[in-house]
Amino acid sequence: MLKNGFVRSIRVDRPDLNNNTADVQRLEACLKVELDTGRVRIPLTVMKRLPSDLRNWNFKAKAVLFKDCHSWFLLDLLDPDTPSSVLGIAIDIGTTRIAMALVDLETGQVLGETGFDNPQAAIGPDVLARIHHSNQPGGLKQLQDLVIQGVNREIGRLCRNHGRSTGDVYAVSGAGNTAMTHLFAGIEAFQMIKEPYIPCMNILDTVAAVELGLNINVRGQVFLFPNIGAYFGGDLISGILYSDLDQRERPAVMVDVGTNAEIVVGSREWLIACAGAAGPALEGGMSKMGMTARPGVIDRVTVDPVSNRLAVHTIGEKPPIGICGSGMIDLAAALFLSGRMDIRGKFSTEGCGSQLYEENGDMLFRLVDAEQSGTGEPICLSQVDLNSLTSSKAAMYTILEVIVTQTAGLAFGDLDRFYVAGTFGSFIDPVSAISIGMLPDIPVDTFRVLGNSSLGGAILFLSDPQVFDRILNIRRSITYMELNVNQDFMNMFSGAKFYPHTDRSRFPSLLKTT
Amino acid sequence: MLKNGFVRSIRVDRPDLNNNTADVQRLEACLKVELDTGRVRIPLTVMKRLPSDLRNWNFKAKAVLFKDCHSWFLLDLLDPDTPSSVLGIAIDIGTTRIAMALVDLETGQVLGETGFDNPQAAIGPDVLARIHHSNQPGGLKQLQDLVIQGVNREIGRLCRNHGRSTGDVYAVSGAGNTAMTHLFAGIEAFQMIKEPYIPCMNILDTVAAVELGLNINVRGQVFLFPNIGAYFGGDLISGILYSDLDQRERPAVMVDVGTNAEIVVGSREWLIACAGAAGPALEGGMSKMGMTARPGVIDRVTVDPVSNRLAVHTIGEKPPIGICGSGMIDLAAALFLSGRMDIRGKFSTEGCGSQLYEENGDMLFRLVDAEQSGTGEPICLSQVDLNSLTSSKAAMYTILEVIVTQTAGLAFGDLDRFYVAGTFGSFIDPVSAISIGMLPDIPVDTFRVLGNSSLGGAILFLSDPQVFDRILNIRRSITYMELNVNQDFMNMFSGAKFYPHTDRSRFPSLLKTT
Repeated sequence: MLKNGFVRSIRVDRPDLNNNTADVQRLEACLKVELDTGRVRIPLTVMKRLPSDLRNWNFKAKAVLFKDCHSWFLLDLLDPDTPSSVLGIAIDIGTTRIAMALVDLETGQVLGETGFDNPQAAIGPDVLARIHHSNQPGGLKQLQDLVIQGVNREIGRLCRNHGRSTGDVYAVSGAGNTAMTHLFAGIEAFQMIKEPYIPCMNILDTVAAVELGLNINVRGQVFLFPNIGAYFGGDLISGILYSDLDQRERPAVMVDVGTNAEIVVGSREWLIACAGAAGPALEGGMSKMGMTARPGVIDRVTVDPVSNRLAVHTIGEKPPIGICGSGMIDLAAALFLSGRMDIRGKFSTEGCGSQLYEENGDMLFRLVDAEQSGTGEPICLSQVDLNSLTSSKAAMYTILEVIVTQTAGLAFGDLDRFYVAGTFGSFIDPVSAISIGMLPDIPVDTFRVLGNSSLGGAILFLSDPQVFDRILNIRRSITYMELNVNQDFMNMFSGAKFYPHTDRSRFPSLLKTT
Repeated sequence: MLKNGFVRSIRVDRPDLNNNTADVQRLEACLKVELDTGRVRIPLTVMKRLPSDLRNWNFKAKAVLFKDCHSWFLLDLLDPDTPSSVLGIAIDIGTTRIAMALVDLETGQVLGETGFDNPQAAIGPDVLARIHHSNQPGGLKQLQDLVIQGVNREIGRLCRNHGRSTGDVYAVSGAGNTAMTHLFAGIEAFQMIKEPYIPCMNILDTVAAVELGLNINVRGQVFLFPNIGAYFGGDLISGILYSDLDQRERPAVMVDVGTNAEIVVGSREWLIACAGAAGPALEGGMSKMGMTARPGVIDRVTVDPVSNRLAVHTIGEKPPIGICGSGMIDLAAALFLSGRMDIRGKFSTEGCGSQLYEENGDMLFRLVDAEQSGTGEPICLSQVDLNSLTSSKAAMYTILEVIVTQTAGLAFGDLDRFYVAGTFGSFIDPVSAISIGMLPDIPVDTFRVLGNSSLGGAILFLSDPQVFDRILNIRRSITYMELNVNQDFMNMFSGAKFYPHTDRSRFPSLLKTT
């Protein structure tokens, strides 16, 4: 018997002269008991053939169910002996990249994953450009079509690869930032970028897949994660869900670093969130040698304890061609710990020696010689790049300090867990991040890497219907804090721009090693 | 401001930096207050353009709403200055005849009515034949198409006649017996006629008009009245609603006579219903000279108090061609009161004189001579016809006695109101019906004619959303009683076959006149 998910094996009471309630109402009563609920909607499509179906199936059936904010409802009733399982699709609707997973709704198992670049990038690289385009005649429809067509193509591919039909897919859960979710649903987004920054919807609720043009079972339904506002989207709520932050007894933090750093602190009692521009230096393409992770990209930099020389590691162990965000943090830590950079984040002439040289008025540090490089050119870090990293790490630390210590009134040491989400977060070395004063100096085993937490939450949704209420609770219990960049903030930020900080006592673990 | 129906004038709070909830959620909050409810569903179709619409309309709108068993939901949001009103269609889905009304949802006013023969009659004259046909391949679809096409044609005609568009129609309410309602919705009905007589559904709830193929606004919804079982349909629940039986402080009775007599007794505290074969003699076509009401049909028979002669009145005052059910009751009363029929319901040779003659072994009473007749033939009532009427009136009285006095434990005198519903009931003369012992001897001003109470209830539904809960309450509070035709019933029935009854003390008003 399938018991815990959106698919249930049910047995409806047989009618007799003393139990002559209609078939639909007997099915409804059975589902209410099965789901322990007071309300289950049954669609006309299922009703139409119900008398024959129940009698052909000996009053047993496989019930495919779904939920919205108001009640459970039945999507379909299948022959109890249907051999193939009912499927779901989870989607992380990223601005840059869309990730998807095919989930067996009967076992909760992830059968396969895939990812592709958001085809809306053809219209505009970022949220702002796309929202502007959505306000042009036909623009909204065009943007929606692009993403839906891409998703449909990948649903088809995922199903084919697993020998399944798209008709077996009954449920889709999607999490994205507020703008991407609006465009996915074809909902006007333009007011979101004009004062007072009003999204069309905070809670979309469950909608029919056909209404969105998604090519799954015609009775299929789609749940899109709710948002808190223009700046706090369903992807973050999905991430909180995935992290279990909302169920922890003791306070924890979740950080998701992209172009924005989104930070949530809290426990099952309360949640405080804020977002701020933090990470440009940590994303590929922002520094001269920065790039996103791929073969040949430097992802690790270490200091040889004996020779004090820097050693690099590349993805796929290919000749180095650039450096990614996590490599950058490692590099900054290595430069600092090896004495090549001072506490102000400036290259030390003495420490760098011949690796440092001037070009076009900027100081460059040669990390890899032209001979060892995969590009034929030396791989260098400029002082300008380093300054940008310094600002980013200082912003991250300051925001953490504001939200954890000032707003929540905790010490960093009170944090039971520190989740790092996002692709970038997957590769970060907490020791390096602490060394440069980007993350607080708490025990390394407190840190947990979440990976794509937005996709993780969307998958979780498909495997556990109770998650629905958790999502609404998370949304309700979050206090969203606008970052107030006042003099107080700027003072804290100035201190955090030092390595690791003007107040070195905040980083006791570094005192031991340096 | 429109306040009480399914159409409301609303004003949504304007957003500002301190009230930056999304547009959808602000609309939802506004509707919750307006409707005094905790739940309102808003469709994606409305969401998509909501930001522009609200701003174009200065945050005012005309909201078109509907309900189902679970919650209110929004159908559409219109420009507050839309000049034309929102419309609804009420339908009485009769086995023989379908009656419809076009209703202005903003004023509750009935703009027009129409009626047409149920096109399913081409498949089979009665419920049983049609249900059998529905079990043939394609039969159910064919039956549904016939009735839906007929209704669509009349919706179009009603709208055209009132200079309106079918796109202005957002709501349909339909009441019919259980079988007709199943066929209207295209739901399997076959189990209803096989032991243990299980309908597919007791409560269909609200469904989209497009799902039924109804040609109204594409966002329109349809509510079909629920049933209690195969033998107690939505038409009766609609009738109870229309009669107000469920809201009366003191007990009342509603009788709907057709092929079956359906009887409901109760008040706002309780309702007891039963149905029984009672009326064949009262419907056209069952007796030799019986026919449904049309010009030339005898609808009134009186006794001249001086000459003791019978006088007939015909519809349209045309030469008589037959007699309808109400005329038949009048005739029986006249025959009895004038001494032409004895208390056993047999023609009196003495009282009838030359008007009585024998033909093919049956005794015939010549009511109208060939010369006065519109057919050129005399209009006669046979002893066989009269016996049939006697059985019908006895059945009606006995069922009333069982349900009112035995089951409900009341005396007939406790009845505050006695509603007579149905086309037949519209013409019945209570004095005649009491005279023959068909209806109990209670004050004549207790009787109220309801007309087409099924259509009346469907219209009421469209003009008052609170009616929704009343309907579900009526369904819940009815105790449906299977008529137990046992020895006790047969004894009561035997007494009621006399005119007016073996126990003449039950009809004190007759003692005064005869």
